[in-house]
Amino acid sequence: MTATASTPSAPHPGSPLPNDLEIARAATLRPIAQIAEEVGIPEDALELYGRYKAKIDVGRLPDADRHGQVVLVTAISPTPAGEGKSTLTVGLADSLARAGKRTMIAIREPSLGPILGMKGGATGGGKSQVLPMEDINLHFTGDFHAITAANNALCALIDNHIFQGNALGIDPRRVTFKRVMDMNDRSLRQIVIGLGGAAQGVPREAGFDITVASEVMAVFCLASSVTDLKERLGRITFGYTYDRRPLTVAELGAGGVMAMLLKDAIKPNLVQTIAGTPALVHGGPFANIAHGCNSALATTTARRLADIVVTEAGFGADLGAEKFLDIKSRAADVAPSAVVVVATVRALKMHGGVAVDALKTPDVGALERGFANLARHVENVRKFGLEPVVAVNAFVSDAPEELDAVVRLCREAGVRVAVADVWGRGGGGDGGDDLAREVLAALEHPGTAHPLYPLELSVEEKILTVVREVYRGAAVEFSEAATKTLKQVHDNGWDGFPVCMAKTQYSFSDDPSLLGAPEGFIVHVRELWPRTGAGFIVAVTGSLMTMPGLPKVPAAMRMDLDEDGQVVGLF
Amino acid sequence: MTATASTPSAPHPGSPLPNDLEIARAATLRPIAQIAEEVGIPEDALELYGRYKAKIDVGRLPDADRHGQVVLVTAISPTPAGEGKSTLTVGLADSLARAGKRTMIAIREPSLGPILGMKGGATGGGKSQVLPMEDINLHFTGDFHAITAANNALCALIDNHIFQGNALGIDPRRVTFKRVMDMNDRSLRQIVIGLGGAAQGVPREAGFDITVASEVMAVFCLASSVTDLKERLGRITFGYTYDRRPLTVAELGAGGVMAMLLKDAIKPNLVQTIAGTPALVHGGPFANIAHGCNSALATTTARRLADIVVTEAGFGADLGAEKFLDIKSRAADVAPSAVVVVATVRALKMHGGVAVDALKTPDVGALERGFANLARHVENVRKFGLEPVVAVNAFVSDAPEELDAVVRLCREAGVRVAVADVWGRGGGGDGGDDLAREVLAALEHPGTAHPLYPLELSVEEKILTVVREVYRGAAVEFSEAATKTLKQVHDNGWDGFPVCMAKTQYSFSDDPSLLGAPEGFIVHVRELWPRTGAGFIVAVTGSLMTMPGLPKVPAAMRMDLDEDGQVVGLF
Repeated sequence: MTATASTPSAPHPGSPLPNDLEIARAATLRPIAQIAEEVGIPEDALELYGRYKAKIDVGRLPDADRHGQVVLVTAISPTPAGEGKSTLTVGLADSLARAGKRTMIAIREPSLGPILGMKGGATGGGKSQVLPMEDINLHFTGDFHAITAANNALCALIDNHIFQGNALGIDPRRVTFKRVMDMNDRSLRQIVIGLGGAAQGVPREAGFDITVASEVMAVFCLASSVTDLKERLGRITFGYTYDRRPLTVAELGAGGVMAMLLKDAIKPNLVQTIAGTPALVHGGPFANIAHGCNSALATTTARRLADIVVTEAGFGADLGAEKFLDIKSRAADVAPSAVVVVATVRALKMHGGVAVDALKTPDVGALERGFANLARHVENVRKFGLEPVVAVNAFVSDAPEELDAVVRLCREAGVRVAVADVWGRGGGGDGGDDLAREVLAALEHPGTAHPLYPLELSVEEKILTVVREVYRGAAVEFSEAATKTLKQVHDNGWDGFPVCMAKTQYSFSDDPSLLGAPEGFIVHVRELWPRTGAGFIVAVTGSLMTMPGLPKVPAAMRMDLDEDGQVVGLF
Repeated sequence: MTATASTPSAPHPGSPLPNDLEIARAATLRPIAQIAEEVGIPEDALELYGRYKAKIDVGRLPDADRHGQVVLVTAISPTPAGEGKSTLTVGLADSLARAGKRTMIAIREPSLGPILGMKGGATGGGKSQVLPMEDINLHFTGDFHAITAANNALCALIDNHIFQGNALGIDPRRVTFKRVMDMNDRSLRQIVIGLGGAAQGVPREAGFDITVASEVMAVFCLASSVTDLKERLGRITFGYTYDRRPLTVAELGAGGVMAMLLKDAIKPNLVQTIAGTPALVHGGPFANIAHGCNSALATTTARRLADIVVTEAGFGADLGAEKFLDIKSRAADVAPSAVVVVATVRALKMHGGVAVDALKTPDVGALERGFANLARHVENVRKFGLEPVVAVNAFVSDAPEELDAVVRLCREAGVRVAVADVWGRGGGGDGGDDLAREVLAALEHPGTAHPLYPLELSVEEKILTVVREVYRGAAVEFSEAATKTLKQVHDNGWDGFPVCMAKTQYSFSDDPSLLGAPEGFIVHVRELWPRTGAGFIVAVTGSLMTMPGLPKVPAAMRMDLDEDGQVVGLF
């Protein structure tokens, strides 16, 4: 999950800070129909969900003459200090709008599970939020529930098929597709189902993932149209026969009902920022076992409506940006023209060896050491043909000499840089003006984005290319299981898919404790998970959590509904 | 689940009938905002969900001077022949509106599980449907998903509490509250969770029910306000300590987040019929282990907006009407002024001994024998202080002499009766004019509804009263387990709750094969399930399915989404 800013900047350092929910409540929203009209969405393409949310029926949009430039916001390797990438994405778009540019945001929908667990809300922060935050953070327009239903309808049909005679010969021990729930519920990770005798199904080992980890979510976010959605759903491999032949959703005949259950969800959601900038908030796959960015349809729709589209990729640039360019940009017309790499003084100091509880003490030396992490992400972005802009997201605790040092280091490295205060002053205020200027300058000379590797390479070679070129590892070690699956991938004709690296977000390596800019390490590929519907092969390194658990005191415990029906404790 | 008409009446018997989806598609809908305005809902109390659905923020409605009369639609004991109760409810309301009465409908939302299983759509049929049927039958406004999330958030918090040290001393073997999914998924009925070692939770036996069987659904449908909702959620007993003390949601501290997750769902949904009559479609608890009718808030809201509210109760009058008067009417201001008992020639013949495949042959003798079932339901309704009206729902296969016979038998029994053709001609046409006339005449002299038993009786006595007075059984036999729970109910101070009978809908007895009007039988109470949040004690007779399974060829297999994003196969 994305780390969010924990101690953001504020106008009066030291004063009790208003929380995000309070700031969001104080904002005045305009009717979303009015926002839509300004963006050029015809009334009959707009489906209102209350006064401040709407879905866009993309098929009813006029043919576009616009083809907005995409600005991809990514970050250094995340740390517990928080980078505030979503906050910066929102703030940057507000600043670009303030500079007179026709701007739209395309970002992910938050997942309910983590919100009830650790995170509280996940729609930006401070003065850079998308609204209405209570709705977006809870059920929003029901997209994740629809994805859950489509996923679980498939599971019910699979187990019913086995129960009703198993004409396809599904091996119950080799059903790879799992049920999902948008909840942090560790007890459902490993379960045995179908107990209770012959009338209750066929017992087998199974499990639940969180909804954002569903392949249906990845398919949903990569589909370029309803037709493409149906085709991708049909291509999902849900398991294997007793003689190990892969079985697809199309063979089971379940693709139609799954698409039907997604008929409204697939329409992008329009909301607004505190500053009134239009935002498409749509889809939200995991950034480890999937590609970690909003739906392709939201991004392409935003390009039809705006001149600049600010979008975001999950985790650091080694994961999010790489997948954006090697997976999403191959599937849809979303190639970025500029890339913003978010860094914070706090996080750079952690990469320089400072412990999380010592971050408040100014330490330019540590910051200079930690800069190596940022420098490498900058170099990596250039490998995709793009020129990065570094955004330093200012925090209350940052010392002026520290901020100056980051700017100096960036200038020395020949990369555009600006300090932004999007939390405290907001992009709607002047908090992101400098950054907007740098981004606009970068967009004057847009790069030509290209993927890192050609699809013709073998899966093994693709993984090695990412490890060497982006992570700077020395080699890849495949486990016995992964080696076996490599052969299976080849035998099944799945060599042509790009790879989706599932690696810790905290390090370039697969060891989360190796901060900064390590090199020469070995990356261990433990398993390969073919995702033939989404269209990538997940390479699992290290341990991987696809169903999070709740902490000792979940955020849910402070949440409530007051007598007026207002949400309490969602921050 | 409610049986629906399988071979309804149509203008041209023998011609290929259009299916419900085709009829629904051919209808012209008016913008729901316009319908709302006509009903007197102020704009700021209306939250649109697309063009044809809206939620009503009840707190923003003006103080009502209206207090509409409630017409409760119930039925004879259902048979596989189908009674078409929902269709008749919609058609009757359309006819009352056509007669110039300010009428509103309050009915249940359909559950997705059965729709993907056996039923197809469940929003009325023919010309008597609520629209848009595709949306209402699928995710609608997300209410059931919100209820699922609230239910499962509680479950995740329970298992997390056990995992994190179990300060409350929850006995993992005595967690009675189950996870839910709105899916027919038999493999989830009995499962073992928390497997995989110490980091993955505490192993225990568990299971999933279908969402409509959740106590959260029952609570949702009985709550009279947000405050009442929170109190009821807090009172839910989710399990027991090692020393068998009941544990409530309030003790765990999970009531707040559950209420928060229901903040929008609790607002009634406004839609329209094919004829343009406003309908509140909201909530939908099981009719066996719960009370089986739409939310109290929908019914009371409709009373504030209309002079006549047509509402429906699940299954036959022995279950639905009894629970409406003994459970729902005690919790909310919804007491009916008249009761419509739906019967069909086909179903009466089945009660008279005709097999389902011989129903097309006219058989007045069988019909006269089967009339005993209807006659008893009529008598029963009178025991609640209400005067019934019999509605004969006409089917294509009904012979004129059969229809005449039912009318004659009703007149001989001194009960109002009318034949209605709500499927073929519709209530918006003249298909329900006669019925509307009879209902209006009944409303001129409304009864004074009262419950069957006082709450002061013991739970055992309450059950016996229902069995003797309504079912006409001779006695009740409590299993050893039920006897034990009776004592526990008493010890825990739960004697004051009404009882919620979970009995087969097909017979007055607990034996589904005893059709007609059996008497002198013994009712076997197998288990008692205290539902302290909903506020009733479920008495389980016979076997009970709280998670349905899918048939060999699920309805889902014919469902699809076409290239234009239109639903296919939902009928």
